[in-house]
Amino acid sequence: MVEVGIVGGTGYTGIELIRLLLQHPEAHLKLLTSRTEAGLKVSDMFPSLRGVLDLAFSPLDIEQLKTCHVVFFATPHGVAMKYAQELVDAGVKVIDLAADFRLQNLDKFRHWYGIEHSCPELLKKSVYGLSELNREKIKHADVIGNPGCYPTTVQLGLAPLLKAGQDLIEYGNIIVDAKSGVSGAGRKASMSMIYTENTDNFKAYAVGGHRHHPEIVEALENISGKKGAFDGLTFVPHLVPMIRGMLSTIYVNLTAAGQETDLQQLFEQFYQNEAFVDVMPEDSQPETRSVRGANYLRIALYQPLPNRLVIVVAQDNLVKGASGQAIQNMNIMFGLNESLGLNHIGLLP
Amino acid sequence: MVEVGIVGGTGYTGIELIRLLLQHPEAHLKLLTSRTEAGLKVSDMFPSLRGVLDLAFSPLDIEQLKTCHVVFFATPHGVAMKYAQELVDAGVKVIDLAADFRLQNLDKFRHWYGIEHSCPELLKKSVYGLSELNREKIKHADVIGNPGCYPTTVQLGLAPLLKAGQDLIEYGNIIVDAKSGVSGAGRKASMSMIYTENTDNFKAYAVGGHRHHPEIVEALENISGKKGAFDGLTFVPHLVPMIRGMLSTIYVNLTAAGQETDLQQLFEQFYQNEAFVDVMPEDSQPETRSVRGANYLRIALYQPLPNRLVIVVAQDNLVKGASGQAIQNMNIMFGLNESLGLNHIGLLP
Amino acid sequence: MVEVGIVGGTGYTGIELIRLLLQHPEAHLKLLTSRTEAGLKVSDMFPSLRGVLDLAFSPLDIEQLKTCHVVFFATPHGVAMKYAQELVDAGVKVIDLAADFRLQNLDKFRHWYGIEHSCPELLKKSVYGLSELNREKIKHADVIGNPGCYPTTVQLGLAPLLKAGQDLIEYGNIIVDAKSGVSGAGRKASMSMIYTENTDNFKAYAVGGHRHHPEIVEALENISGKKGAFDGLTFVPHLVPMIRGMLSTIYVNLTAAGQETDLQQLFEQFYQNEAFVDVMPEDSQPETRSVRGANYLRIALYQPLPNRLVIVVAQDNLVKGASGQAIQNMNIMFGLNESLGLNHIGLLP
Amino acid sequence: MVEVGIVGGTGYTGIELIRLLLQHPEAHLKLLTSRTEAGLKVSDMFPSLRGVLDLAFSPLDIEQLKTCHVVFFATPHGVAMKYAQELVDAGVKVIDLAADFRLQNLDKFRHWYGIEHSCPELLKKSVYGLSELNREKIKHADVIGNPGCYPTTVQLGLAPLLKAGQDLIEYGNIIVDAKSGVSGAGRKASMSMIYTENTDNFKAYAVGGHRHHPEIVEALENISGKKGAFDGLTFVPHLVPMIRGMLSTIYVNLTAAGQETDLQQLFEQFYQNEAFVDVMPEDSQPETRSVRGANYLRIALYQPLPNRLVIVVAQDNLVKGASGQAIQNMNIMFGLNESLGLNHIGLLP
Repeated sequence: MVEVGIVGGTGYTGIELIRLLLQHPEAHLKLLTSRTEAGLKVSDMFPSLRGVLDLAFSPLDIEQLKTCHVVFFATPHGVAMKYAQELVDAGVKVIDLAADFRLQNLDKFRHWYGIEHSCPELLKKSVYGLSELNREKIKHADVIGNPGCYPTTVQLGLAPLLKAGQDLIEYGNIIVDAKSGVSGAGRKASMSMIYTENTDNFKAYAVGGHRHHPEIVEALENISGKKGAFDGLTFVPHLVPMIRGMLSTIYVNLTAAGQETDLQQLFEQFYQNEAFVDVMPEDSQPETRSVRGANYLRIALYQPLPNRLVIVVAQDNLVKGASGQAIQNMNIMFGLNESLGLNHIGLLP
Repeated sequence: MVEVGIVGGTGYTGIELIRLLLQHPEAHLKLLTSRTEAGLKVSDMFPSLRGVLDLAFSPLDIEQLKTCHVVFFATPHGVAMKYAQELVDAGVKVIDLAADFRLQNLDKFRHWYGIEHSCPELLKKSVYGLSELNREKIKHADVIGNPGCYPTTVQLGLAPLLKAGQDLIEYGNIIVDAKSGVSGAGRKASMSMIYTENTDNFKAYAVGGHRHHPEIVEALENISGKKGAFDGLTFVPHLVPMIRGMLSTIYVNLTAAGQETDLQQLFEQFYQNEAFVDVMPEDSQPETRSVRGANYLRIALYQPLPNRLVIVVAQDNLVKGASGQAIQNMNIMFGLNESLGLNHIGLLP
Repeated sequence: MVEVGIVGGTGYTGIELIRLLLQHPEAHLKLLTSRTEAGLKVSDMFPSLRGVLDLAFSPLDIEQLKTCHVVFFATPHGVAMKYAQELVDAGVKVIDLAADFRLQNLDKFRHWYGIEHSCPELLKKSVYGLSELNREKIKHADVIGNPGCYPTTVQLGLAPLLKAGQDLIEYGNIIVDAKSGVSGAGRKASMSMIYTENTDNFKAYAVGGHRHHPEIVEALENISGKKGAFDGLTFVPHLVPMIRGMLSTIYVNLTAAGQETDLQQLFEQFYQNEAFVDVMPEDSQPETRSVRGANYLRIALYQPLPNRLVIVVAQDNLVKGASGQAIQNMNIMFGLNESLGLNHIGLLP
Repeated sequence: MVEVGIVGGTGYTGIELIRLLLQHPEAHLKLLTSRTEAGLKVSDMFPSLRGVLDLAFSPLDIEQLKTCHVVFFATPHGVAMKYAQELVDAGVKVIDLAADFRLQNLDKFRHWYGIEHSCPELLKKSVYGLSELNREKIKHADVIGNPGCYPTTVQLGLAPLLKAGQDLIEYGNIIVDAKSGVSGAGRKASMSMIYTENTDNFKAYAVGGHRHHPEIVEALENISGKKGAFDGLTFVPHLVPMIRGMLSTIYVNLTAAGQETDLQQLFEQFYQNEAFVDVMPEDSQPETRSVRGANYLRIALYQPLPNRLVIVVAQDNLVKGASGQAIQNMNIMFGLNESLGLNHIGLLP
């Protein structure tokens, strides 16, 4: 039984971790901390937990966290890096759902997150937790930077093309038109998030620059080994009036080699042993509702022109895009079956 | 392992049965029939099942159904009663999610459903499957009439008052103002159900008379033993622009005895051993999202005037209000732990 | 041309006043004040106004307000009463959309709003602005207390019964089960109002007591002339996941006289000359979408039992329930056609 | 006063025409036909019209239509072309909101709509009704092919670049990632359109080919005068869980000349005299709710890379994308002020 602590369980990745861990056969949720809500019963904040969880939020006590086998940080950016080294020294695994261990480039981290990284040495040793692509490194990692939701869709949507051994696509002009449900913005009392301002509405946001952009670029460089090749990538996120769900529409230009390749087959083979990546048959249309509450990510390919490929990727931003993948990483780190506790079927309707 | 067949799995109670049964540790979904969709892979209709279920819909073949231990009918009214006797004769348990075995009064059945009951003898032996109230009879039943969604909320919301051994409320003027998400109307291609006609809208419906009215009245008579006492009950259902969820607001007048009773305590004690009924503390507000996808039903009491009690009851209409309760009944019938496969935590957000 | 000022235009009743006044042929929106947003262009807060309104919010300057013919207060409770007397003294009409001039009972005002009334003399002279019922007094009023949204539905839903000249209903046990869209809670950055906490959810709220309860009771007393008769009224509001719209389901018991009366005809005659009250034919179902953005209020009657009447009333909470009725009152006060600028057709779909 | 007939008023473009025309000071809605609903009062189908419109649907009678000055066809594709010539011969103007007069290329029409065009001569004389770009021709047209909703956004989003007198963008690899509310699919009782299948869901659709694709390509050729230049355009529509609203995100590569041009200024100047096209300031984010129910179309520009321009265009698909633009065309054809009856402010919230 893996003893688990969660730091900062009052947001949506927090409650999603709780939901999944409470139904995980080999995990025991031992400790939940909150700076602002210490003492409050967790089920008083999240009524879905009434009758299911008796725990109250604790204040953050590093000694208590050291009694866990793994600690998830479901906190704002900048928190995990303060505590990670001490936990690792005590033999505790750390999985950060924020951005502290996502970007290896310290300048970009400073630029996009507005803070100096406090443990660059540990960052170097940390592993980027895209489970399907970094499985071997994750097994032996002490610290995991759990990927952002958008970057997860882009990486899994492009990986088969980048790992093909030849240049199938033009790397310099990829376009990612991404759409997210409102829960992706977290659980915050801000005017821009209230019901009446988001319902029956659609908009692009952060078109001038989104924090997931440098993460996407760095990750694609790592997957392909091609530094600088993706600087021409354009990433535009949009906000969809739905609670959960994320869909990325990725446009790439095919090289001559790419046009000669059976791309459907390439994707199917690449993911044939993956439990959570579903390459749908040709002419399919992934819908976010098909993964609501589930850890699956679905991919479909279209080739509207001989030299253009459109890749549509759907996931639940809170599951495969956050807390589900974090638990997938935990399973890998602790030698458990990677799917353990993650076989929830999407809630449809 | 209980071998399960589902007749008519193309509606929402059907897909919800499938979702729950596939995650049930002691059930095996053997057979799914559909008159209209035979041959179609179930996951082609319900994309949430891709990678999870390989089964295709079969045509309805009674001999095949006889190889199951239990058959759920997730069909329109009038189907289960055609097959139930033959299945029972073959030793197969039957759980009907439609209305064929809900009303003992044949005249009312004919009046409200417009058809003649085809097996009144079997109807007499059937058991009304409100799990918490009829547990002992359900254990030994061959045929279960699974309760309607609205009637489930009303019965569990009133039972402690009706079983108190004295008259705590006036029986003759109960008002049930009930609200349901759109999935309660089923999965049908009709103009009144399309997205654009239901979103950002609220209305009452069937104010002149709803099929669940006679079911509620008959059930309350059975619980209380008071024939005719509930003829003054008024039931008005409303349609809420949400997918799942049902909330009933029940208004009753308290007798002098009722005003002297600690009703909060009465309810808490009545349900103290129930896994799925949550009597919330005073001043609570049950929200349907707290039970989204879960088998829990939550109750809160308010006494705005000395002689008036307001009972608010929330459930997921497709789970405790339909498929979840059907599986709860299956668990009881087969001597399994009543909660088995039903401990899903509500999907929040 | 009526010169109009709005104090506090940053909420939803404010933007709705702006929308309606800008399309009103005899009104000129001269001045918009906001304590917190002075200097900001109104269209930077409400993008629907881009290209339509060039005004910026001003700081509240009483001298400037005195140059208007009428000032609407779309502020929190307690603001209008500070400025009303000085404006009236300067010959300016005042229409308060908050509660400062709704309750004549000062004790109840103090109890429910937690503040002492600062101009009880002016309050006595003010008129309660339920346009259809108080038209004559409104014509000559200096200060209007614009009715709350819920009370508007209850008064118009019950008025024909209370004005019938005989007792058609039992006054002591009226039940009002009311439902409102989220905009009814205003425009506030609070956790309870964010998209992800309200979508796909339904709940009752303020069951223990809502500020509109004493307003409803006082108003019904005034309409009927029966002090104390409505103390047994129970009012339970619910929150519907929709932006706009309000529907009240009102349950009353009929007296013998009530049972002998043609109530449909009674309602139709009572409202036959009203432009904004629609008594629907029997068996109709008012839908909130039918009045989205419109000043109409629709009523339907049902008699499920000989002695029980159910009255369903639908309106747009921001129009007939707030800003539309406020402008209707302005029209009356200034001798304009009562419907002027208010003939918007509901936005459907 | 323009006497107006509408053929096929039972869909959403029909009801939207009705809503706008009833509030138009120079139009009189004389006649509404419906093949399936003849005899039904229009307000019995669309409850928002209760008390506003007394008309009933008539059967389609060409002689009656000839008594109108203009006839709108809000019908499925293939209807207007059957009646247009006879109406034109009788001196009646025709505005078709379907596709019969959108595509000049008969092969493409046959391919995409599956029918043979029945009046190719009249088609040649018809005018494509993108009001801002074809105003002069519209003035003298007898038959208008009213643009599709998606094509309207793409044309107005690209026109300033195509009319600049030099090549500012690469024409061959434009990407249009478009998103529409559900009302864009019309008012049809089909399973794919029901509430429970569309709420809390997002998906791409028609990725393999959408009927608006050839319309977009032909229109861009006409605007730019460059035949064949746009064959590399990729168009992917998506379905947003909202009633109204459309947002297109258009990705283009800038030429050297384009990179040296002040594109913000170019757009602002191009549309400076347009009442309904709003070029928003830099760093703006058009939201569909800002045009809900209004005829405005908003454009914002972003340049995330020196050689890449992102154009975001928002409109209400039923107004500027359909019925509003149709009335704008009517105004032009009849020498009225182009904005007449179209100054509705967006309904926000």
